[in-house]
Amino acid sequence: MHVADAPHLRVLRLLRDEGPVSRAELGDRLELTRPRLLAEVERLVAAGLIAEAGMAASRGGRRSTLVELHPRLRFAAVDLGASSIDIEVTNGRLEPVATYREPADIRSGPRQILLRVNELLHKARTDGAYDRLDAVGIGVPGPVSFRDGVPVSPPIMPGWDRYPVRELLAREHGCPAVVDNDVNIMAIGERHGGVAHSVDDFLFVKIGTGIGCGIHLGGTVYRGVDGCAGDIGHIQVDPNGPVCSCGNTGCLEALFSGFALAREALAAARSGESPALADRLAAYQAAANQAAEEPGGAGPDGDRPEPVITITARDVADGAAEGDVTCIRLIREGGRRVGGVLATLVSFSNPSMIVIGGGLALLGHVLLAEIRSVVYRRSLPLATGNLPVVLSELGSRAGVTGAAVLASDTAFEQA
Amino acid sequence: MHVADAPHLRVLRLLRDEGPVSRAELGDRLELTRPRLLAEVERLVAAGLIAEAGMAASRGGRRSTLVELHPRLRFAAVDLGASSIDIEVTNGRLEPVATYREPADIRSGPRQILLRVNELLHKARTDGAYDRLDAVGIGVPGPVSFRDGVPVSPPIMPGWDRYPVRELLAREHGCPAVVDNDVNIMAIGERHGGVAHSVDDFLFVKIGTGIGCGIHLGGTVYRGVDGCAGDIGHIQVDPNGPVCSCGNTGCLEALFSGFALAREALAAARSGESPALADRLAAYQAAANQAAEEPGGAGPDGDRPEPVITITARDVADGAAEGDVTCIRLIREGGRRVGGVLATLVSFSNPSMIVIGGGLALLGHVLLAEIRSVVYRRSLPLATGNLPVVLSELGSRAGVTGAAVLASDTAFEQA
Repeated sequence: MHVADAPHLRVLRLLRDEGPVSRAELGDRLELTRPRLLAEVERLVAAGLIAEAGMAASRGGRRSTLVELHPRLRFAAVDLGASSIDIEVTNGRLEPVATYREPADIRSGPRQILLRVNELLHKARTDGAYDRLDAVGIGVPGPVSFRDGVPVSPPIMPGWDRYPVRELLAREHGCPAVVDNDVNIMAIGERHGGVAHSVDDFLFVKIGTGIGCGIHLGGTVYRGVDGCAGDIGHIQVDPNGPVCSCGNTGCLEALFSGFALAREALAAARSGESPALADRLAAYQAAANQAAEEPGGAGPDGDRPEPVITITARDVADGAAEGDVTCIRLIREGGRRVGGVLATLVSFSNPSMIVIGGGLALLGHVLLAEIRSVVYRRSLPLATGNLPVVLSELGSRAGVTGAAVLASDTAFEQA
Repeated sequence: MHVADAPHLRVLRLLRDEGPVSRAELGDRLELTRPRLLAEVERLVAAGLIAEAGMAASRGGRRSTLVELHPRLRFAAVDLGASSIDIEVTNGRLEPVATYREPADIRSGPRQILLRVNELLHKARTDGAYDRLDAVGIGVPGPVSFRDGVPVSPPIMPGWDRYPVRELLAREHGCPAVVDNDVNIMAIGERHGGVAHSVDDFLFVKIGTGIGCGIHLGGTVYRGVDGCAGDIGHIQVDPNGPVCSCGNTGCLEALFSGFALAREALAAARSGESPALADRLAAYQAAANQAAEEPGGAGPDGDRPEPVITITARDVADGAAEGDVTCIRLIREGGRRVGGVLATLVSFSNPSMIVIGGGLALLGHVLLAEIRSVVYRRSLPLATGNLPVVLSELGSRAGVTGAAVLASDTAFEQA
């Protein structure tokens, strides 16, 4: 049996999620007696967390004062990807007041990456985005011990294992910090401000460079005993499939992910099987050759490095939109693989929604249609009777949004 | 954030799980102040739920009185299987004071089955097992809306869809009732008194006539949005596999379950591929023929029905113990199928233990070894670093034990 959260948490979350509210309405909404509510409000005003915001419209009797989260509140939200740093500094309502995004290789290790995160955050202060931070939330692309605030055996993050990320951020910025897995924060973000708004039980499936799943059950993220719940990219879907980076064969993400799709698309372009992709490849090559011949470019001499020509998921999506059958086939095959795994997970966990996000979500309705088809055909009918399979609404902002939610929850809990 | 359960619930559960405890120790264990504890105890004594039980051994100062659950408390625990009714009437500590077990076909419908359940419970009263019941807990072999207390679209229970099981049992016995899925109550039972004692995150996999999974996460059963979480028997494991009773092809339980194993074992016995099974089949046939020829048996004339000869999982287990290679192969193939699905579920849910129960658990260590091998090889290393895969300790009593736990929790919550 779960008892309701403490009154101060409920007050702060309501003001965060809905904006200024009158004292009278707060009392009604949270079912708090007037003296209890007034005491809470007074305490939170004294703590500098909330402030008065003028008078509410009359409800017939005396007009009630509006309260809101203090305009000074600031949260830092950081989303570390395999190859990028995304930062938002937000106000109490989690609206961004400063945004930074730049490429960064997570493999350069925690010192260098966190140094850069701190530089960007200090720059935000210099830019006037905040005076002081109330909390920092950060997502990293690997398993995390949420309790300890450290990454745990993250496969693509050499040097990060048990690195004290939470402790160092908290010390640097003089406020609470919280660390979570990148897919978990995307799920939290999507629930706060996206298509899963107020949905308690859903799966957020990120299909990008790799594949992962955020599991939201009973209103909260389920992280597993070792913090690696939802790590579905290495589920074996074809014992005769290609060898995966993890050493096993036929893992889901060895068959369908940004990396796998680019590899297959390049092959289809080179063989000419896909006219749409072959055209793009030729155009990229021409552009690269031209760039190399221009003054200031690498010279046309012998030691010029071979230009790296890549076909991307975007090219496959565009090819499919033009009706290129190979592009459509590549997307459908991928959707079938993902759908097969999701059918199993739906039978197992009986969620009320599946959200598809990550870079490959740009493959759009062809991908969705195939995933839906497999899930609806293969899962238990009772579990799919009313199961929307939809695209993320927040897209690339899902991660920072969730990191901001976690940061604010942490600040509110410690208030 | 979850706040601790109400004090009276914590007192009652502690006395249920650990027996008589002194007032002084209760206060220490539950971290309640002395006045708060005394008030709770007084209230529960007045409500007839707990009673004094003599003096505790001295702890140096004044001796403290022991309290215990009232000796009069009685819970009814019912486990409905596809072909059986199991009932225990227990005292407050969930020790059985009366036990009934008989065959029953769940397909005969809710009226007939519940009539029989009520007859057995009234017989228990006549037998002196109780004066009145404090709660009834019942498990059924299908999805359940836990909130509504009704089965929902249960595939093998014609006539039971949304039948008001909870309401009718509560009315008949004048006490609260609670309805859950049969695998969920097995998981709850195993956590109360079996190998998963005090484990918060584990999967209980029942392999019997069908296959199902009880999901225990964060200290509580996860039932899913429609009550069908854990329904893993119809996960497709081989697109070219046999047609399942559900209409799809290659479902897990079409490839390995009590029914599937019996079918394959019978084929191996008839073809002579398995000498051990062929011997058993011959012995069963001889016994059946002899029975038919005996006075009082069906006569040897033309309209005598063909005797139904079945090879069971027990025969396969015995054959494997004797070293019959076909029997060992059948078990290993089944273990490999189940292991493949569990590897996926382990990567997804990162539990801290897997418990194997149900009728086919008698296949023992050959089955376990194969399941372990596949799970350890195919799941994420972080998730299997410390993941015991073990047999149920409670065996056929897991279900009624869990039903008793649910019944007592329901009674305590309403106290």
